[in-house]
Amino acid sequence: MIVPTHRVHNFNAGPGVLPLEALERARNEWFDFGGTGMSVMEMSHRSKEFLALHAEAQRLLRELMEIPDSHQILLLQGGASLQFDMVPRNLLREGEVADYVVTGSWAEKALEEGRRHGAAREVWAARDSNFDHVPQQGDVLSFDPAARYVHITSNNTIHGTQWRHFPETGEVPLIADMSSDILSRPIDVSRFGLIYAGAQKNLGPSGLTLVIIRDDVLERCAKNLGPMLSYRNHVKNDSLYNTPPTFAIYMLRNVLQWVKDLGGVPSIAARNERKAELLYEVIDAFPELYRGHARSDSRSQMNVTWTMPDEALEKRFLAAAQDRDLIGLKGHRSVGGFRASIYNAMPLMGVRALVDHMRSFAERNG
Amino acid sequence: MIVPTHRVHNFNAGPGVLPLEALERARNEWFDFGGTGMSVMEMSHRSKEFLALHAEAQRLLRELMEIPDSHQILLLQGGASLQFDMVPRNLLREGEVADYVVTGSWAEKALEEGRRHGAAREVWAARDSNFDHVPQQGDVLSFDPAARYVHITSNNTIHGTQWRHFPETGEVPLIADMSSDILSRPIDVSRFGLIYAGAQKNLGPSGLTLVIIRDDVLERCAKNLGPMLSYRNHVKNDSLYNTPPTFAIYMLRNVLQWVKDLGGVPSIAARNERKAELLYEVIDAFPELYRGHARSDSRSQMNVTWTMPDEALEKRFLAAAQDRDLIGLKGHRSVGGFRASIYNAMPLMGVRALVDHMRSFAERNG
Repeated sequence: MIVPTHRVHNFNAGPGVLPLEALERARNEWFDFGGTGMSVMEMSHRSKEFLALHAEAQRLLRELMEIPDSHQILLLQGGASLQFDMVPRNLLREGEVADYVVTGSWAEKALEEGRRHGAAREVWAARDSNFDHVPQQGDVLSFDPAARYVHITSNNTIHGTQWRHFPETGEVPLIADMSSDILSRPIDVSRFGLIYAGAQKNLGPSGLTLVIIRDDVLERCAKNLGPMLSYRNHVKNDSLYNTPPTFAIYMLRNVLQWVKDLGGVPSIAARNERKAELLYEVIDAFPELYRGHARSDSRSQMNVTWTMPDEALEKRFLAAAQDRDLIGLKGHRSVGGFRASIYNAMPLMGVRALVDHMRSFAERNG
Repeated sequence: MIVPTHRVHNFNAGPGVLPLEALERARNEWFDFGGTGMSVMEMSHRSKEFLALHAEAQRLLRELMEIPDSHQILLLQGGASLQFDMVPRNLLREGEVADYVVTGSWAEKALEEGRRHGAAREVWAARDSNFDHVPQQGDVLSFDPAARYVHITSNNTIHGTQWRHFPETGEVPLIADMSSDILSRPIDVSRFGLIYAGAQKNLGPSGLTLVIIRDDVLERCAKNLGPMLSYRNHVKNDSLYNTPPTFAIYMLRNVLQWVKDLGGVPSIAARNERKAELLYEVIDAFPELYRGHARSDSRSQMNVTWTMPDEALEKRFLAAAQDRDLIGLKGHRSVGGFRASIYNAMPLMGVRALVDHMRSFAERNG
């Protein structure tokens, strides 16, 4: 492997760090993909080489996430933001109810789009505590049994919270925005009617959106939509109704291969647990200095958020972090302080470097 | 410059050939973009480095295409296919008229989406001659003066035809799908109310869509649309409402810089004229063997289409072309035969190699 001369510890919230191995593979075949004499970006999306790549990405996803045959995989454009619109556009008609669990800013945006199409209800929201927790196992969420679907956000990038136990919704399809924790831990896909995720955190570059849709949910989708906004159309055309973002799909393939080589989702999950544990340990060790935003029962393994007692300290912490090549730590303005995004591709080494900084800063400022 | 070991002559219709210089620049800063210690794909789209890149791409486009200040530039996702929907969704209400000039398959698709939203009319179509020509200067097109817009397709990738003179539409905004000839020749942008183009022919990789919209057209756009489908929202947010396809925008910047280094659009246009001329010369020199699909007055400088007298000949021609590393020449099924896509990034050398093949094949089979 080429060891690049200068690589920082990249804690960006997304687009964020990618596996070096996936990047390296791309660089090695940059001008000549698989003997075609062209870069992967220059290939027709109807060529057998690209179609093989497209199929391989889907096959790897199915294998790694154990996606059952009852679920179709779509590789689309537009990000989660377009899914906020497509979900209700396909599944919710005027007068019909859909239930949204509002665990953060992205869930709020999803709800807003739901309301454009039908009677989207907010069934839960931790707005008063600035979204510092998510529902826990045993919490009663009063879903409407006649709802067309229940919508949740599995991980809340901005607030640093994450669902541990997904809610029971009976016959009502459960729909999840998994943009920021997809492929980070084993989940039972069969329990979900629809899953969507922007690629730019755990899957690859931005500009690619994964949708996983169960057949019975697909059956309920509207039939009169324009082709680009219709799940039916995209499934019918295997996501190739129009030119797909070919390079992003290629990078997705490289990232998935890297996950597989590491031992699959269980290995990645163990690594992610360890990374998060290290960070929460240091937060808990210096609770006066590092004030975790998320309630302990709701802590995210992908985005670790905290504030510090005053702005002057925060500024010094950030400047000193920068000196150690710890990049992308500034928190979202709605929480303030800091956010360390430790997606799949963040190596343990990067987390250790951050933990070292936090410890030594605490010792000097404790 | 690195000379790659194996590069073919890439005549793909799109995604297609990219400038070697643009690819090389990307490869050189692959692991460390501008000293950030990360690849451009790993950077936050809110970082100052990416925002500078985003602004630079727009600035270069404005400079190269001489886009006046009255026109806003958008860098979106979804391809021209989503624009087929967004144009009428934003500009056409039930009962209102829009006029479509149908010069090929893509124009037909645009019309179909128009009809979903309002009274979209087909005002011209050369369907009987399999779209072998486009309207000529002096042809009377009976536009409705009350139409919300007139829609044209400036270059028809499949049929190999191209408008030379754009129609006069008076007060009615002229809208053009320029996916396959944008940036290939000087055009007077001020004459257009809206221009859109998928990037994957002349601008960069697939997964990026350029929209250029004039202020008075923006003013007429619907106000009640979801954010992802609203031109108003994208203009308001400078195309950064949600995470953009950052790598594709970076490649766009590299491609635009290459065009600038070559001398800008006039130089590219002269090169494109020369390339097309060479191909049409050989077609005209062997009219029994190479049967140009497009009428001479409508010939495209981007996609040169022809058929041959029988399938056996066509097969031999294609196999022999492949032996010379001439790739991507098979025509679209609706025309058959051959299509040589000679976008901006196709070097003169590639066209010469194809012309040599056509001449020597003709001499052996004349």
